[in-house]
Amino acid sequence: MAAITEMTREELLKLEEKLSSRYEEFKGQGLKLDMSRGKPGPAQLDLSNGLLTALTDYHTESGADARNYGILDGVPEVKKLFSDLLDIPADQIIVGGSSSLNLMYDQMARLMLFGTQGEKPWKDAGQIKWLCPVPGYDRHFGVTEEMGIQMIPVPMNDEGPDMDLVEKLAAEDESVKGMWCVPLYANPTGICYSDRTVERLASMKTAAKDFRIFWDNAYGVHHVYEEVRLKDILKAAAACGNEDRILYFFSTSKITFPGAGLAMMAASPANIAEIKKRMGVQTIGYDKLNQLRHVQYFKSADNIRAHMKKLGDALRPKFDLVAETLEKELGGTGAARWTSPRGGYFVSLDTLPGCAKETVRLAKEAGVVMTGAGATWPYKKDPEDQNIRIAPTYPELDELGQAMELFCLCVKLCAVRKLLQTK
Amino acid sequence: MAAITEMTREELLKLEEKLSSRYEEFKGQGLKLDMSRGKPGPAQLDLSNGLLTALTDYHTESGADARNYGILDGVPEVKKLFSDLLDIPADQIIVGGSSSLNLMYDQMARLMLFGTQGEKPWKDAGQIKWLCPVPGYDRHFGVTEEMGIQMIPVPMNDEGPDMDLVEKLAAEDESVKGMWCVPLYANPTGICYSDRTVERLASMKTAAKDFRIFWDNAYGVHHVYEEVRLKDILKAAAACGNEDRILYFFSTSKITFPGAGLAMMAASPANIAEIKKRMGVQTIGYDKLNQLRHVQYFKSADNIRAHMKKLGDALRPKFDLVAETLEKELGGTGAARWTSPRGGYFVSLDTLPGCAKETVRLAKEAGVVMTGAGATWPYKKDPEDQNIRIAPTYPELDELGQAMELFCLCVKLCAVRKLLQTK
Repeated sequence: MAAITEMTREELLKLEEKLSSRYEEFKGQGLKLDMSRGKPGPAQLDLSNGLLTALTDYHTESGADARNYGILDGVPEVKKLFSDLLDIPADQIIVGGSSSLNLMYDQMARLMLFGTQGEKPWKDAGQIKWLCPVPGYDRHFGVTEEMGIQMIPVPMNDEGPDMDLVEKLAAEDESVKGMWCVPLYANPTGICYSDRTVERLASMKTAAKDFRIFWDNAYGVHHVYEEVRLKDILKAAAACGNEDRILYFFSTSKITFPGAGLAMMAASPANIAEIKKRMGVQTIGYDKLNQLRHVQYFKSADNIRAHMKKLGDALRPKFDLVAETLEKELGGTGAARWTSPRGGYFVSLDTLPGCAKETVRLAKEAGVVMTGAGATWPYKKDPEDQNIRIAPTYPELDELGQAMELFCLCVKLCAVRKLLQTK
Repeated sequence: MAAITEMTREELLKLEEKLSSRYEEFKGQGLKLDMSRGKPGPAQLDLSNGLLTALTDYHTESGADARNYGILDGVPEVKKLFSDLLDIPADQIIVGGSSSLNLMYDQMARLMLFGTQGEKPWKDAGQIKWLCPVPGYDRHFGVTEEMGIQMIPVPMNDEGPDMDLVEKLAAEDESVKGMWCVPLYANPTGICYSDRTVERLASMKTAAKDFRIFWDNAYGVHHVYEEVRLKDILKAAAACGNEDRILYFFSTSKITFPGAGLAMMAASPANIAEIKKRMGVQTIGYDKLNQLRHVQYFKSADNIRAHMKKLGDALRPKFDLVAETLEKELGGTGAARWTSPRGGYFVSLDTLPGCAKETVRLAKEAGVVMTGAGATWPYKKDPEDQNIRIAPTYPELDELGQAMELFCLCVKLCAVRKLLQTK
């Protein structure tokens, strides 16, 4: 299609009529599709069903009875499994329950209530601020908002967050206490942080001594096409004497089961010691049988990698379909631009300014629920009202095709109507 | 034995010699027994082994896929199971992960950070205070200490905490924000709150509008002898318009597996609504497969009650043995008094003033680890140094017999030496 941004008013009117009529046809079909959350589809979950019956021995390798109390920070063999998978020393790892969001929230709550490494509790540090690469993950922003931390959006570029801006804000303002990062296949753009970005995050000067990067490597092994390598930020930060800066999070939510997986965090030895001490007040320990279940199912990090290849194979046709439909329906129209992730769970699309909310509303009215427009920005406020997160993983292929077709139609229809307001 | 408190110096010296020599014999045996924590023994855990393979369907009754994301507050059928067991409306229940301590800590952290029902966050309310029935549970006191809340000990009597004192402190001082309670088979005394105590807690006037009772009904169905009934505090509080005062906690840690059970909390509709909203920022949901596992294993509350009878049968000989040994070794000596719980996990013993630490030290030196003296008091400071928690559940009967014999010997030996200091 020709660029709608170049069209005359008459051409736009004609196109609006055509698109509207197609939209009404869609509405008549009574679709009911949910593309709102980054959930694996049932077929993908089936690939981990062996986990359900994997637990054959409730003893840890050292002979401890995992049914009973004890072992605060994770059974040693599950720490070793994560250690092998992510190349992090096992003694810098803590394994939690099933939710890494929970580990992040708890860590933020500890920083608020108690501070870290001898610095003042953040609740007593005045109005503190947080750097938020945008578009980003709504649940991250939810945690900082809940804590009353002022969020500062930082634009993303092809190598990650705009590091000139990040360095400036971190160096100048002591109240800037940290930053959210999804470094590999970022939610929702799919952007992967370059080595240079990782190095700059690890080495940059920060006015706050207790500046903390919440490094949510949620998609650390979730390659869909070729494998993208991420530079090791724990090592990079340690090399600069900034090892306490990094709080690393990971989970098997999108490896095994989102509803019953394992979450973990990793950090410097000093941070781990501090966290274990405080965590020991909060709980006697997390579910160790589920930890053993995962160890006895996977046995090795290599087996997890092999499993991720299967998951990637299952997701690839969905990512292909999204990319193809976007190109076919919106390519050259000027109505949108979008990302082409090589892994992870999302695709990010920018409509013309002022069109995201209306696009999502139109799609919903015709039976396709997208992630709410604005969700990818702090306080759910997208200043240009243009970003929409596409979550292609849950629907089956045929449904995904229908949903994407309708969605693209809505993007175009909105764009045309928007342009008509000023022409 | 005659009352050592009545003995002459000469009699005491003779007894000391005899006890010392018996103590040295014990030391020679190289015992290595742990009576420090309230852990079920392996044989008791075996009674729940069916749970390990109980999960046959990962769908909830309403058809939701429990492997996937969703269902923040617990699958409906597990809420119903707890509802039937504890006679609490299912919609006033939230099911968490495996640790009720974690639910309590998180609730306390929310009160600190955000406050409740429109009142000021506790972090901004100056130095707040907390009523702590003593002797009590060390991990409860650990949570309030961690939050910087000043703990006020309240003595226990046969009907629960000294309610005259509780009412006075709660009514007079706005900074008194709440109270720990283990209402049935209290840790460590085994005391059960009387109906009158429950009524007074539910109805008393409190200066703080946001006074909260953390009602840790940890042993709510853990009868060892006849069943003791506990008055329903949620209903009693609601009847007085104080329904928001009660935060009720429970878990299956000592029903199925401490390392992989289910924790739950219950509260008023207004509290539940508030908690769910904040909890939704912290996590997308707890392990739903473990929830289904418990439902598919137990099927009904009656089956849990039947299971608890078996656990009670397994524990009764241990409680019998402790009671018999205490009576045989210490009865009439005046060296100690102790409780005779009808259920729960502990027995509480008071030595002569100033003897608890030394008694525990002596026992440890001879190979029997007891809960640390002082642990049952806020800040681990037992002002009279006399309370010791006995945890008889973990060792097998023969070991328990040895351990109790040595322990009683240490109690007597310490008492004799103490008396010798002043005679």
